Amino acid sequence: MQAQVLVGGRWRDARDPQGSFRAEDPTRAEAIGPAFPVSGQADVDAALAAALGVAPAFAQTPPARIAAFLDGYAAAIEADADTLVALAAEETALPAEPRLRHVELPRTTGQLRQAAAAVRAYAWTDPVIDTAAGLRAHRAPLGKPVLVFGPNNFPFAFNAIAGSDFASAIAARNPVIAKAHPSHPATSRRLAELAHDALVAAELPADAVQMLYHVDNAVGTRLAGDGRLGAIGFTGSRAGGLALKAAADQVGVPTYAELSSVNPVFLLRGALAENGAALAQEFFTSCTMGSGQFCTNPGIVVLPPGDEANAFEAEATRHFAAGAPRPLFSRGVQENLVHALASLVHAGATVLAGGDVGGGQGYRHQPTLLRVDARAFLAAPAALQAEAFGPTSLLVRTRTDDELAAVAAAFEGNLTATLYRAVDGSDDATWATVAPRLRARVGRLIANKMPTGVAVSPAMNHGGPYPATSHAGFTSVGMPAAIQRFTALHSYDNVPDHLLPPELRDRNPGGIARRIDGRWSDGDVGATS
Amino acid sequence: MQAQVLVGGRWRDARDPQGSFRAEDPTRAEAIGPAFPVSGQADVDAALAAALGVAPAFAQTPPARIAAFLDGYAAAIEADADTLVALAAEETALPAEPRLRHVELPRTTGQLRQAAAAVRAYAWTDPVIDTAAGLRAHRAPLGKPVLVFGPNNFPFAFNAIAGSDFASAIAARNPVIAKAHPSHPATSRRLAELAHDALVAAELPADAVQMLYHVDNAVGTRLAGDGRLGAIGFTGSRAGGLALKAAADQVGVPTYAELSSVNPVFLLRGALAENGAALAQEFFTSCTMGSGQFCTNPGIVVLPPGDEANAFEAEATRHFAAGAPRPLFSRGVQENLVHALASLVHAGATVLAGGDVGGGQGYRHQPTLLRVDARAFLAAPAALQAEAFGPTSLLVRTRTDDELAAVAAAFEGNLTATLYRAVDGSDDATWATVAPRLRARVGRLIANKMPTGVAVSPAMNHGGPYPATSHAGFTSVGMPAAIQRFTALHSYDNVPDHLLPPELRDRNPGGIARRIDGRWSDGDVGATS
Repeated sequence: MQAQVLVGGRWRDARDPQGSFRAEDPTRAEAIGPAFPVSGQADVDAALAAALGVAPAFAQTPPARIAAFLDGYAAAIEADADTLVALAAEETALPAEPRLRHVELPRTTGQLRQAAAAVRAYAWTDPVIDTAAGLRAHRAPLGKPVLVFGPNNFPFAFNAIAGSDFASAIAARNPVIAKAHPSHPATSRRLAELAHDALVAAELPADAVQMLYHVDNAVGTRLAGDGRLGAIGFTGSRAGGLALKAAADQVGVPTYAELSSVNPVFLLRGALAENGAALAQEFFTSCTMGSGQFCTNPGIVVLPPGDEANAFEAEATRHFAAGAPRPLFSRGVQENLVHALASLVHAGATVLAGGDVGGGQGYRHQPTLLRVDARAFLAAPAALQAEAFGPTSLLVRTRTDDELAAVAAAFEGNLTATLYRAVDGSDDATWATVAPRLRARVGRLIANKMPTGVAVSPAMNHGGPYPATSHAGFTSVGMPAAIQRFTALHSYDNVPDHLLPPELRDRNPGGIARRIDGRWSDGDVGATS
Repeated sequence: MQAQVLVGGRWRDARDPQGSFRAEDPTRAEAIGPAFPVSGQADVDAALAAALGVAPAFAQTPPARIAAFLDGYAAAIEADADTLVALAAEETALPAEPRLRHVELPRTTGQLRQAAAAVRAYAWTDPVIDTAAGLRAHRAPLGKPVLVFGPNNFPFAFNAIAGSDFASAIAARNPVIAKAHPSHPATSRRLAELAHDALVAAELPADAVQMLYHVDNAVGTRLAGDGRLGAIGFTGSRAGGLALKAAADQVGVPTYAELSSVNPVFLLRGALAENGAALAQEFFTSCTMGSGQFCTNPGIVVLPPGDEANAFEAEATRHFAAGAPRPLFSRGVQENLVHALASLVHAGATVLAGGDVGGGQGYRHQPTLLRVDARAFLAAPAALQAEAFGPTSLLVRTRTDDELAAVAAAFEGNLTATLYRAVDGSDDATWATVAPRLRARVGRLIANKMPTGVAVSPAMNHGGPYPATSHAGFTSVGMPAAIQRFTALHSYDNVPDHLLPPELRDRNPGGIARRIDGRWSDGDVGATS
């Protein structure tokens, strides 16, 4: 007997499962928990039909009810924290504390509540009013289903049924079809139960939130290529994301895909001189946190010319060599990591520490540090900046400032780049050469801290130029910007006040910020400020 | 001897022309003016190399100089109006007055000046500051070339070297490679001369603006598929735009393409009763303005049940039947129109008036009115909503309000939809049924006026869901939103004030609007408001 799917507003058996699967305890490589279905075309068709059916009415939902759902869901997750943390820890081998309970779970509930606040304040709608031209514009729901694919590495905060894509799509009043990640199905099921109950409690249509645990690639790609979708949110591997994007591109459906990133970290000379030993520790901690399975893991560290770099390399090597093998999410992650490291070595990198799975039970890998000189890196930049997902990083050794700048200019699109600079300003000339090159290549430029923290803030950009993501103009984290991915621009021309949406009427529906005739105002149209 | 291309910052001969072409006077179907080159791969490669070379530095240009260029270019266009209007009138057969001199030219210069104003006010950069998190974000230049393809129907306002895509890409400090439309090469050359001179006068790098007159499809598609581009702007035919988009999609380059639109107009019963005869005149005028060669031409008019619709149809038919054949841009436009009308008839439409090219010199077509009943429309909605570019429209006759709603729900993505409603409110119940269906399908919803006017306003949306455009979230007209298509989201994390761009520093660079800790402010960070 397989677990039920959430389709058409209710929990029911899969109609035509193409098989079943179970979660694994990665620390033991043993199957755990119940069997879950791999959904076939019938479940996908039913989910799409239900989402299409509910989408137009859902787009008309009063904001207060959407916000009530998001807040209610957040509260339900908190109340259920013990169960959720236990399930996720077992399925992912991520530490129950502090990571899951004290970091990721509060981030997830905070994100849902920030989405609720953005809904109440109409913050994502960007109302613009031109009284002379008789034109009023805002961002509006797509009026179509949003398909969300969740990744393996954040069972709560990026879960297809609870993460930022989910919260964003619902905040913009679009129904969601969630495709959970098969590495944590029990966690996803528990979240979906809470979401479903919160939806019903908020008196929203139950069809607005649906979830499948798994589909095979052909079924998933076919769904992504259905032109009736409004948009796709995806976080995962580059190959998987690009396959879905290719299908969606052909029918004009925008894909917001987070694909891959090595997050280069440049340690400038003065910073190393001020603080080298501490930086080696900070780097090792960031690189092995969550076994390195972060989108913003520092996968490449570029070192400046000079002796300080030798000391840093030696210190970092000691940390990596002393580190125990770390648990990975799955056999697939382990296999991909072994393959990726072999490719780096083949391309010219040398292993300084680690380099092996490390023995023991389950799916693991040693913390692994590699090194390559800049000349070799610049000779094969594509091969040497391929992502190795796990507790690993590659040091790039430069001999001149020109090499430092050339390496900066050789990176493809990334989520982040980091520069550590001396507090005394002695690195600022180097900054002026290197930072502009990195700036054009990344979504977030960081000074003097590791990239692994991703704050849920309106000023965050968890995005970046292709191939880090599929569109350099959008972020997947941070409200209200993340919500705006799932909206359409709507203009009203000469439409009478009573036929406009609330946020575009003369009367301000409640102190919301609007651009009226070129000025920001939180008052009514025509009010003197 | 062929005209010179503007490549690499100077006027020079084409290197490997694949042939040459001349403009035509559409009213006589005769070649006019000099020979222009069809550029080959060498010119395209040279233009791309020059644009790539200048892009990083151009992204650092002080806003004041960008604005000075845009304003200077606008002034130069005004000073050269006599020449430009004469060239464009000859090449397009559009009326010199009022259309070209008093409508399109001022719109073009106004658009350049609005872009300049948006640059001076940093309006397109959307600065967001989160002091607690140490994060600051804004929209920034792509740092890469933007490739712009201009259409045949607006020789000034959408010209690849002068229109909204051009102004937007430059405003965001990205170099432009303009691919002019081959139906008005002399107009485009004159504009490019003015642009080049204005660029030099503003002391900007001459490489930032380049222009080719024509490339064949293979060369154009190869260029669109170069992953070093930042973005593509396109206005033109659906087939052409989708071919470029497909190439760009494969390398992660976003395409902002305006593709096609029939702009449905719904005349509700009360509006017809109040005003039927005047509406027939207004419709005819709108439909034949510019020989109907507008993106927002009212290509389908949906009539309500009742006798008023019969009277409107009779009156409109009289207008169309009495109209003389209208000049079209080219043989291609004429051939496409003849073919499109034949397809509509084949799909079940009946010709009420016109229907023929109408004889006489040059490329022309009679104003043509067709009709189909709603049942037939709903049986073949794809075929019957295919765009027929020219002075033509299709009346769709409904028998019930349910049919009216069903027709509204059968439209694919469009730029606009219009509803005419009775001033006394008697149509509001019908509005409530029909408008939401149209709203989800269009970029701009219009009440009681024809769609052909497109104001350059911050509240305009000249965009719409696929396949009207390639992305429902963006407009190609209206500042600052149109500029934001050609930007990347950039976040700064923990970066010291003096290393931030001006609009993100504590000190406000000049009264610009910024979102600081959730509040709009035009002051400095930390100032009490």
